[in-house]
Amino acid sequence: MIEIDARHERIALPLAEALRGVEAIFESQIASEFPAVESLARHVARYRGKMLRPTLTLLSGLAAARGDLAVLKRDDLQRLAAVVEMIHMATLVHDDVLDEADDRRGGATVNRLNGNETAVMLGDYLISNAFHLSATIGDADLTERLGRVTNTLCEGELVQLHHRDDLGLDFPTYLEIVRRKTAVLVGACGRLGARMVGADEAVAEALGTFGERLGIAFQVRDDILDLEGDPEVVGKTVGRDLAKGKLTLPMILLLDGADAATFGAAVEAFRARNAEGVLRLLQTGDAIERSLEFAVSQVRVGTEAIGGCDFGDTGDLLRDLADAVVDRDR
Amino acid sequence: MIEIDARHERIALPLAEALRGVEAIFESQIASEFPAVESLARHVARYRGKMLRPTLTLLSGLAAARGDLAVLKRDDLQRLAAVVEMIHMATLVHDDVLDEADDRRGGATVNRLNGNETAVMLGDYLISNAFHLSATIGDADLTERLGRVTNTLCEGELVQLHHRDDLGLDFPTYLEIVRRKTAVLVGACGRLGARMVGADEAVAEALGTFGERLGIAFQVRDDILDLEGDPEVVGKTVGRDLAKGKLTLPMILLLDGADAATFGAAVEAFRARNAEGVLRLLQTGDAIERSLEFAVSQVRVGTEAIGGCDFGDTGDLLRDLADAVVDRDR
Repeated sequence: MIEIDARHERIALPLAEALRGVEAIFESQIASEFPAVESLARHVARYRGKMLRPTLTLLSGLAAARGDLAVLKRDDLQRLAAVVEMIHMATLVHDDVLDEADDRRGGATVNRLNGNETAVMLGDYLISNAFHLSATIGDADLTERLGRVTNTLCEGELVQLHHRDDLGLDFPTYLEIVRRKTAVLVGACGRLGARMVGADEAVAEALGTFGERLGIAFQVRDDILDLEGDPEVVGKTVGRDLAKGKLTLPMILLLDGADAATFGAAVEAFRARNAEGVLRLLQTGDAIERSLEFAVSQVRVGTEAIGGCDFGDTGDLLRDLADAVVDRDR
Repeated sequence: MIEIDARHERIALPLAEALRGVEAIFESQIASEFPAVESLARHVARYRGKMLRPTLTLLSGLAAARGDLAVLKRDDLQRLAAVVEMIHMATLVHDDVLDEADDRRGGATVNRLNGNETAVMLGDYLISNAFHLSATIGDADLTERLGRVTNTLCEGELVQLHHRDDLGLDFPTYLEIVRRKTAVLVGACGRLGARMVGADEAVAEALGTFGERLGIAFQVRDDILDLEGDPEVVGKTVGRDLAKGKLTLPMILLLDGADAATFGAAVEAFRARNAEGVLRLLQTGDAIERSLEFAVSQVRVGTEAIGGCDFGDTGDLLRDLADAVVDRDR
């Protein structure tokens, strides 16, 4: 769970209660009469960490309803929050297969425990349940929008795979990948959460932009943690990007401004999957700081997008949430 | 494409035209602005073989509409047919990852050409597009039903994975796995195709049962082909069930009635992944014939289910289709 500062007292408790509702919907949706499936579902439930996406969905509904706490109890809004978390969880399970990761949120990944095959099928089970749950809300247009989001997400992942070991990957392409594979879903939390409570187009768009920029910032922070994070604190396998030949923002910025010697050394360290060598080169220059600055700038653009909306104390909470995305070590 | 006998002349041409419409919808749905994604989509389009599921969807609509050929042109029915084929295609792509298969319908599998990671993500892209396309039909109830189908399908796959190398797998459990992983989707083609043209519950149910039994028969025939089929004719890698420790009906029947010596030899051959040894033991007894008889009996139950409906010449075509499912060598 995301920690909520004490000054958001009015919202904190009803939000926590709504998130418990979301968890209950999530668990009952993926429950199975088959013990083998049920135990996998329970294992995945343990993955749930920050609940960023459900939180943003609920708060976007709350913001659009001008702070009326009653909306947090709405079953359709809670269902939508469970759907986006389920989609996210499916991508985590499949990402772990792609990344050959062993640990996730302090526990073993499904692929390590049960093999890649079960992990592939469990991810499918989560995607399927996400769309089933979405359809139970009874709004075909909502499911269509979510389908467009996941189409985009998968395209982002496929384009990223296509660029593995591509040292020529440039900043615009990197950004387009991140936008698709991460930001569009977070943006949908803002946009669809707001629409669900009847927000007008401008408000939904503002919250959508807020979410998208938050998503980009989140991904860039994740990229940095994968390079220099402490696995004990981060709670998952680090160094996977390099191991799988994934070029991320710090490396792109390093290569972009490098002299011939640094460029050569960086390429060599990258190709040799030399994590220490890569990190040393990154820390010698300012590529990591500049990446973090970019993340901070995205948070700023996101908060500016909702600046014109009168969201009262929900707006303050959203801004705090945005700051926390870049200011974290796990 | 399924070959249609000349005596079904009235239906054959409009059906072929409708299937071309289904293909066009399929291709335009998964098209991508990214060349890397687009070329994968084109590769998958080549997988399309018999089009059993779209054909059954269209014919169920036609049967329920009492043979009115105009329904075959309906955009919603063609979309539904493309959705079920897309779901099927996604399971093929992920199955090939699970089975480490190299060939599919005479060509290389995505996992062989582009690696398991791309195959996992491409399967996800297909599932996502299937639900997106389903949602564009605008009927949330339809998408909810499809979601329930794919939930069931994934559970079937997970239970099957759980029973890998389980020589104690019994007939009822095998049947439940097959029902879930194969029959429920084929049943949905009948049921949802009929509902879409406004069929009453009894007619939709009859076509649903017809599809389900067809699905079971189809899977059993597939199991047999995997044991004794000619890969050149079948068009895909055979022997995968044994290689992956999957117990199928012939082996279950062999073990069930075997004396101690045969039982021991079968278990030994299975554990050693000795394909020739397994096949020899199966062919010595009558396990393969009995499996085929079971498939034929399922086709009979299926055709009996639609026996009470007045489907005219569409009924004749459906019965021919059912016979072809067991009487095939690819």
